[in-house]
Amino acid sequence: MQFFSETTSDGVVERSFTLGDVPGVLWSPVSAEAGAPVILMGHGGSLHKRAPGLVSRAVGLVASCGFHAVAIDMPGHGERPRDAADRALVEAMHAARRAGESIVPFVTELNRSIAERAVPQWRAVMDALQASPEFGASTPFGYTGMTLATAVGVPLAVADARIRAAVFGGFWGVPWLLAVAARVTIPLEFIQPWDDAELDRESGIALFDALGSAQKLMRAHSGDHRHVPTWLADDSNRFLVRELRGAAG
Amino acid sequence: MQFFSETTSDGVVERSFTLGDVPGVLWSPVSAEAGAPVILMGHGGSLHKRAPGLVSRAVGLVASCGFHAVAIDMPGHGERPRDAADRALVEAMHAARRAGESIVPFVTELNRSIAERAVPQWRAVMDALQASPEFGASTPFGYTGMTLATAVGVPLAVADARIRAAVFGGFWGVPWLLAVAARVTIPLEFIQPWDDAELDRESGIALFDALGSAQKLMRAHSGDHRHVPTWLADDSNRFLVRELRGAAG
Repeated sequence: MQFFSETTSDGVVERSFTLGDVPGVLWSPVSAEAGAPVILMGHGGSLHKRAPGLVSRAVGLVASCGFHAVAIDMPGHGERPRDAADRALVEAMHAARRAGESIVPFVTELNRSIAERAVPQWRAVMDALQASPEFGASTPFGYTGMTLATAVGVPLAVADARIRAAVFGGFWGVPWLLAVAARVTIPLEFIQPWDDAELDRESGIALFDALGSAQKLMRAHSGDHRHVPTWLADDSNRFLVRELRGAAG
Repeated sequence: MQFFSETTSDGVVERSFTLGDVPGVLWSPVSAEAGAPVILMGHGGSLHKRAPGLVSRAVGLVASCGFHAVAIDMPGHGERPRDAADRALVEAMHAARRAGESIVPFVTELNRSIAERAVPQWRAVMDALQASPEFGASTPFGYTGMTLATAVGVPLAVADARIRAAVFGGFWGVPWLLAVAARVTIPLEFIQPWDDAELDRESGIALFDALGSAQKLMRAHSGDHRHVPTWLADDSNRFLVRELRGAAG
């Protein structure tokens, strides 16, 4: 993990890094507690590691909760090139949208493929942080993110027990994801846009229901996934504090 | 409004009162701000004005938000006698439950009837508080309560514009209530027990959908209406602060 720039404002230290060919950002309190949890922040489809909403939520986690937050560009997003197969799926998705047809087959296949690549990259980020003396091997992790970030986060939570709590939402209950979701056991919250032209409600509920966790909460807001109320992030922050502050021991 | 006892503990003043033949409790900060909002706290079916969960939420509203909170016994509950018609419906409900049949026709009719009587009683409580120099005519109100309290609160919110925000939940989308719900326009939160043998999910969702408010949020927790996570009350408190602190202007 190579850090190459650092800025500090309003009590939040922001460091840019690369890990192999994956660029990322780490936000930390100016004076972090030893063992403070780290929240992995997935960005949505077509967005990137410094999308304004993500940065705002990251700063909130650092400033209000004393957590670290880390984001990476997903494959084909932000500073990372999009390969030919991804480009074809993105084109097919745009064509379907223009034709008034369902984008679901294309976006879910694209996101399944991105998840396959992103899960080991997120695990490498956790490895690198835990290997650093600044963090340490027992650092607990949380995960948050909607749409693409949920397609990545659900298999990540199954693959890696270091993630102790997650906030998901805004995705479809497609078969490949339902199968993985059943194996999730950590406490979670699920944000379901209740009036979304593309994220149909029944499919989102099917995904929520499939998640195997005993402790789960759905928050369904009036509006779509582009209009998630900002205060919902505060509610999710408190959930993460409840779950991870205990884990931090 | 006749006050007849007052105790103070942990910064919360609790006063018992009667208003006509309706007994109630008012919880206030030891040093309340002028114009502080008052939250009307409905109790659930078979419970009463000092049910432990209600008292705990009331104390939280006073201590964390600086609000007042007020509860009354609903008709046929707590210290108030149950009339013959109510008794017959309660008996029919218990008989249905014992027989493994649906309680919904009986409980919803009982609650409709209670709501008819309770709405003017809650309005009289607001009148009495606003007439008191301690509160004043511009005091804003919020409302919270599940099950029976939602059957009462939805028509109350339609009948009285002094209620500016509400937390409902745990009820069925039966025709009489759906019709009233469509006329609700205030911001609201809706608590939907996601795994409840008697409160079926589809019917609860139908009620949430029927509510006419542009700003609404459903929180669906794993578990039933007897196991609402206590931290959901904290989330609802913050909602009430957002909505009513502005109104207190």
